[in-house]
Amino acid sequence: MNEAAANAHLARSVGSREANNPSSPVAEFGGDQPLRLDAGVDLGPFRIAYNTYGTLNADKTNAVLLCHALTMDHYAASPSPTTGKPGWWSSLVGEGKPIDTSKFFVICSNVIGGCLGSTGPATIDPRTGEPYGLDLPVVTIPDMVRAQKMLVERLGIDTLFAVIGGSMGGMQVLQWAVSYPDKVFAAVPIATGSRHSAQNIAFHEVGRQAVMADPDWCNGRYFSEGKRPVKGLAVARMTAHVTYLSEIALHRKFGRNLQDRDRFGFGFEADFQIESYLRHQGSSFVDRFDANSYLYLTRAMDYFDIAAEHDGLLANAFKGSKTRFCVVSFSSDWLFPTAESRTIVHALNAAAASVSFVEVETDKGHDAFLLEEPDFYRAVDGFISSAARARGLAQ
Amino acid sequence: MNEAAANAHLARSVGSREANNPSSPVAEFGGDQPLRLDAGVDLGPFRIAYNTYGTLNADKTNAVLLCHALTMDHYAASPSPTTGKPGWWSSLVGEGKPIDTSKFFVICSNVIGGCLGSTGPATIDPRTGEPYGLDLPVVTIPDMVRAQKMLVERLGIDTLFAVIGGSMGGMQVLQWAVSYPDKVFAAVPIATGSRHSAQNIAFHEVGRQAVMADPDWCNGRYFSEGKRPVKGLAVARMTAHVTYLSEIALHRKFGRNLQDRDRFGFGFEADFQIESYLRHQGSSFVDRFDANSYLYLTRAMDYFDIAAEHDGLLANAFKGSKTRFCVVSFSSDWLFPTAESRTIVHALNAAAASVSFVEVETDKGHDAFLLEEPDFYRAVDGFISSAARARGLAQ
Repeated sequence: MNEAAANAHLARSVGSREANNPSSPVAEFGGDQPLRLDAGVDLGPFRIAYNTYGTLNADKTNAVLLCHALTMDHYAASPSPTTGKPGWWSSLVGEGKPIDTSKFFVICSNVIGGCLGSTGPATIDPRTGEPYGLDLPVVTIPDMVRAQKMLVERLGIDTLFAVIGGSMGGMQVLQWAVSYPDKVFAAVPIATGSRHSAQNIAFHEVGRQAVMADPDWCNGRYFSEGKRPVKGLAVARMTAHVTYLSEIALHRKFGRNLQDRDRFGFGFEADFQIESYLRHQGSSFVDRFDANSYLYLTRAMDYFDIAAEHDGLLANAFKGSKTRFCVVSFSSDWLFPTAESRTIVHALNAAAASVSFVEVETDKGHDAFLLEEPDFYRAVDGFISSAARARGLAQ
Repeated sequence: MNEAAANAHLARSVGSREANNPSSPVAEFGGDQPLRLDAGVDLGPFRIAYNTYGTLNADKTNAVLLCHALTMDHYAASPSPTTGKPGWWSSLVGEGKPIDTSKFFVICSNVIGGCLGSTGPATIDPRTGEPYGLDLPVVTIPDMVRAQKMLVERLGIDTLFAVIGGSMGGMQVLQWAVSYPDKVFAAVPIATGSRHSAQNIAFHEVGRQAVMADPDWCNGRYFSEGKRPVKGLAVARMTAHVTYLSEIALHRKFGRNLQDRDRFGFGFEADFQIESYLRHQGSSFVDRFDANSYLYLTRAMDYFDIAAEHDGLLANAFKGSKTRFCVVSFSSDWLFPTAESRTIVHALNAAAASVSFVEVETDKGHDAFLLEEPDFYRAVDGFISSAARARGLAQ
């Protein structure tokens, strides 16, 4: 396939369209403003796709940064152009909602390494005219946050009123508070941990192996080969999806209910509703996500370990912090169980930081951070309102 | 590939050698003695590979049947010819051990649908001269038990002193007690459930999809094509392996320890020890197991649901049972959590059956049933000794 044909194919490919022609605003950083990566190299030029909701006040003190999870995007409170679905936090973020866009200037950007507008492995490498693929250096959570800091400065904001996010987004929240303690007034890390556990690394590794086992992955050069590792990526997504739900939720929602028939098929088609549901999760995911991005972002989560960067003592990372924290966990989340949040809370207490902690009772598992859980929303609402008063923001 | 070449390839293929030329004793059942399958068809001729340990007494009252788990074989107490490793229960079964081969005649057979000597998808279909592949009807746990019953009769045994097994083996134990209540004096279902949960079906489905996504699976006809879906099967095994361990065990054993270096590789090679360990689990599994067998046996577990066959009431299945039960669970097993065992115990109590129940405290997860856990071994020893006295077996 020649370059023109490859690029035409690329332009048509789901997961690369947004990567190279984002529908949203974009902050471009030239080769003279590279992003310094933990891998020890500079990335530049690069770009960050983002959305904003609400209006920045005159003092520029009402900015809230939302950090998205592994497979989400910067469409937190507006419909995604890829799926047409409402923003992933549209019930939490908006006028009159807990994160009230009539009071706050809300920013959400696609992470570096992603595939929905910011520079990632599906982005065209300006040096070659082809997608980076595995030529993009591996990025980390601190790299993502460093890029967000450049975006925030570009938007003319010195200090964020709040940084909020769940799962991988929660990791970014913690990293913001550690990297830029004076630039974050309030932080809400949700359903997350200060480091990725062995079990979580294991599940991510299974997903990566599923992608890389697919011959259509082509060692990461699938766009140039006119292919996409859809089967491998679907298996990766299916594995991950099981970890996002609780056993109770799966039992209540599906149990052992059969699909479209009252007896077993005695074959390997989807007999159970849970099988059909998982297959759908896998096949719809590949329509909206780039396989290499999945490798990069899972890797970033696996590498995340705040304590390791602070002599093994998590409390050291938060010493002297003036940020107000609200740590949220969900009782049935077994991917980031409450114990992970308690570890964060203990470290914050040990560092004499201001912290409140809410474990939300729910049977919906890790996914609860994306669902309208009343106790969760009340906790965010109460914490943000209180912090806004302390910050002197008009209520 | 012509038939002779295909068969030559087959003979060399790991996972099909034992399937067609077992090293162990074999019970052959001719076309006139077919196995009636739940799928509604007869399987015949068929064969069962088995091993025995100890001596059958004159009264034929000291026979113990061991039922193996998903990927195990009939080498419970002697080295496997495939791996060279000691039998999977060699610390539990042997002279002077809790299942004492100086007192009991211990039988262990490879399940129907397996790949290590009994008829399964890798077995040559006598009608075609090629491996069955997906032409083998789907088998169920009751089918496996029906075949074992035919083997036990062939060995001249009317009533088993005990049936013992863990995980999928535990399902067979329960099925024996339900299908042949008068032929089982004592039953020890370990780390198992009376039906497969939605979450467990989900993880199995992920594994099957990984196998079937591999182009070398060739719709099940890989032997004839001179191929094997090793990558897909390895991913399936990696996923399953994570579910066999507990988070605590993974943390203690691997944590976030790095492999052979003191910093990240910033790539997709195995950085963490847990990744390297999982990759090894995947690659060593494909050397000893047939991919289609993996599909068949996971399917059999998914279909398992004793209550469904008894008007939805598990207790109905055990009504009037004279069998003595000892139900064993492990506190950190999240694949078959203690709640699953309690459900069995409650049903046995409701059916006025004789039942003792032991939850073994351990952090080793589901895999604990294959490990030398002192409390587990004591429980089996005590229960078997007591049952042997009740059966009038010399102690």
